[in-house]
Amino acid sequence: MRDFTYWNPTKIVFGRGAVDRVGELVPSDATVLITYGGGSIKRNGVYERIRTALGGAALVEFGGIEPNPRYETLMKAVALAKEKGVDFLLAVGGGSVLDGTKFIAAALPYDGADPWDIIEKHAPVQSATPIGAVLTLPGTGSESNGNAVISREETRDKLGFGSQALFPRFAVLDPETTFSLPERQTANGVVDAFAHVLEQYMTYDVNAPLQDRQAEALLVTLVEQGPKVLAHPNDYDTRANIMWCATQALNTLIACGVPQDWATHGIGHELTALYGIDHARTLAVVFPALLRHQKDRKRGKLLQYAARVWGLVDGDEDARIDAAIEKTEAFFRGMGIPTRLKDYDVTDGYLEVAERIGRRGGGLGEHGDIGEKEVAEILALCAA
Amino acid sequence: MRDFTYWNPTKIVFGRGAVDRVGELVPSDATVLITYGGGSIKRNGVYERIRTALGGAALVEFGGIEPNPRYETLMKAVALAKEKGVDFLLAVGGGSVLDGTKFIAAALPYDGADPWDIIEKHAPVQSATPIGAVLTLPGTGSESNGNAVISREETRDKLGFGSQALFPRFAVLDPETTFSLPERQTANGVVDAFAHVLEQYMTYDVNAPLQDRQAEALLVTLVEQGPKVLAHPNDYDTRANIMWCATQALNTLIACGVPQDWATHGIGHELTALYGIDHARTLAVVFPALLRHQKDRKRGKLLQYAARVWGLVDGDEDARIDAAIEKTEAFFRGMGIPTRLKDYDVTDGYLEVAERIGRRGGGLGEHGDIGEKEVAEILALCAA
Repeated sequence: MRDFTYWNPTKIVFGRGAVDRVGELVPSDATVLITYGGGSIKRNGVYERIRTALGGAALVEFGGIEPNPRYETLMKAVALAKEKGVDFLLAVGGGSVLDGTKFIAAALPYDGADPWDIIEKHAPVQSATPIGAVLTLPGTGSESNGNAVISREETRDKLGFGSQALFPRFAVLDPETTFSLPERQTANGVVDAFAHVLEQYMTYDVNAPLQDRQAEALLVTLVEQGPKVLAHPNDYDTRANIMWCATQALNTLIACGVPQDWATHGIGHELTALYGIDHARTLAVVFPALLRHQKDRKRGKLLQYAARVWGLVDGDEDARIDAAIEKTEAFFRGMGIPTRLKDYDVTDGYLEVAERIGRRGGGLGEHGDIGEKEVAEILALCAA
Repeated sequence: MRDFTYWNPTKIVFGRGAVDRVGELVPSDATVLITYGGGSIKRNGVYERIRTALGGAALVEFGGIEPNPRYETLMKAVALAKEKGVDFLLAVGGGSVLDGTKFIAAALPYDGADPWDIIEKHAPVQSATPIGAVLTLPGTGSESNGNAVISREETRDKLGFGSQALFPRFAVLDPETTFSLPERQTANGVVDAFAHVLEQYMTYDVNAPLQDRQAEALLVTLVEQGPKVLAHPNDYDTRANIMWCATQALNTLIACGVPQDWATHGIGHELTALYGIDHARTLAVVFPALLRHQKDRKRGKLLQYAARVWGLVDGDEDARIDAAIEKTEAFFRGMGIPTRLKDYDVTDGYLEVAERIGRRGGGLGEHGDIGEKEVAEILALCAA
């Protein structure tokens, strides 16, 4: 096992009616900026419940944070928050709202010339305006970690940043708020969470058997609960199980002491930036291709995954690995998510993804050696 | 799944040389009370490394916290800490030192007449002196939770208490510091951790499959690593795996949203109080007996445990359950820990345990209905 530091101070308030407890969690003397996305929280009643729960608190609001939240949009929120003297941010929504709010939180006290440097030049985030989260769309895990991914329209960049200072102080997880999610967003969340676990698990053995089994616990549960939620979207326990899996999938616990991959996310972000494909859908396209391409280097973990997640223990090694990757792809398709580029009308030009990754320099993956050439080969498998 | 709040703010610093980083973790302006047990930290070098790491900090020390830490001893530490103006407690040792230090932390700012009320009358712990932990004996999980068990010599009580305020600010987990542990303490730690998981897992199904699988991940890993550590006590990864399992076993995560039992601990504490049997050893005696006694009520989980932890899937239900309990007992014995009362020279008089539990009132177990009569029946199985 490798050395690690694990520190996740986010308080999770989980269950029925949790949204109505947000008033206990936000500091009573705060000037609060409520951030949200396209307004579904106004249609499903969550917005009104939060207003009621916060009672007489000083509230400012900023809606319209888009999927793949944009620097340009977020800088408007930063200006508003400065103008109003905001000192607490309450993000209500899914990963995009959470990630966008983390950027606002980092940009507010930032004293450099250009807050974009936080992302592009990795300017350290020493302090941040405190954040609380009301999660209404499980998937990204952003409600209980310190990371965010921000896009910039001008340059078609989609880049991540993170800091311990950006962990939300609390996250309210109320599974009933997810009953009204469109099937597509529900399915995206399940596949996103599954891919997060794979990024932290599907590397190579470092003698960390607990972390392996904790990751497998998440994978097996997502495989089991995913189809159930599509069949019974108003079943409380199924929604609760998926919500808890998605948080646990990226709260940094299963990454303790093990190598991590994240090449699929690196490639997927470029596909989203260039073609506007939903984040989770890019992962469903790239992951099977990446596993096929990296089959020999990931052999040990692929065999373990085949056995423990898919019950594949008979036949020769290559057959088991191939079958496990096919089952992974079938799981994604069963969630209604196609797994090839052509399904998203991307049939040529996609080598630009490889070129962009090449230009950024450095290599992807747990060995840091997946560069432009390898990305091009993986994309060819995505296009097959 | 049941509603829950999960909030574990302890920062874990895990790995080789972690002890030497304690200076980064203790506030630089603090007056620190270092608490420890019988002095093994002076023999194995940990004490000197901590003194060096803390450099010029104001240090006070209090050694001699015994296994099953006693109120009488701890009140001496409270007096010393008050006299010296201590404002940070650094616990160096295992669960007894940790638990004892939590009582000191709660008693220092306590403004009631008698700090024993914190334990016996459940006086709320609103604030506590901050604690840091350097763990040198894995098992209890006290390094990353807010609970403690304290004994009182005068009354032969052994009772628990807890508060969110008592979570350590940080826990340093340096597996190399555990190489020199006596085999008995190593084995006790493995069995203690295993029992902690069972207390939170072996109840009844509430449709929380992730929590079940996270618990099973711990159980399987402890079953696998336990015999390895006895065979290879200086193998770093084995020590690291056990240390991380023990923390995860009782950091409150696997308890999220599920019922809990804790009857075995309730009975075990009385056995320790009356006969001085090591805590973990009482659990190894009581748990198999409790499972046999509660076989029908725990049937579903016992079958799941038989299949997923011990691979028992053939034969009729009762045979699988009996075999799983036998395997559990064999695992404890394989760790060098006997599983019957007579092995500890307790052959009569043990019904006093049942009487004492009866006098305390209330019922034990996940249904709250294990009273004096049932405890007596369980003790009879322990004596068989």
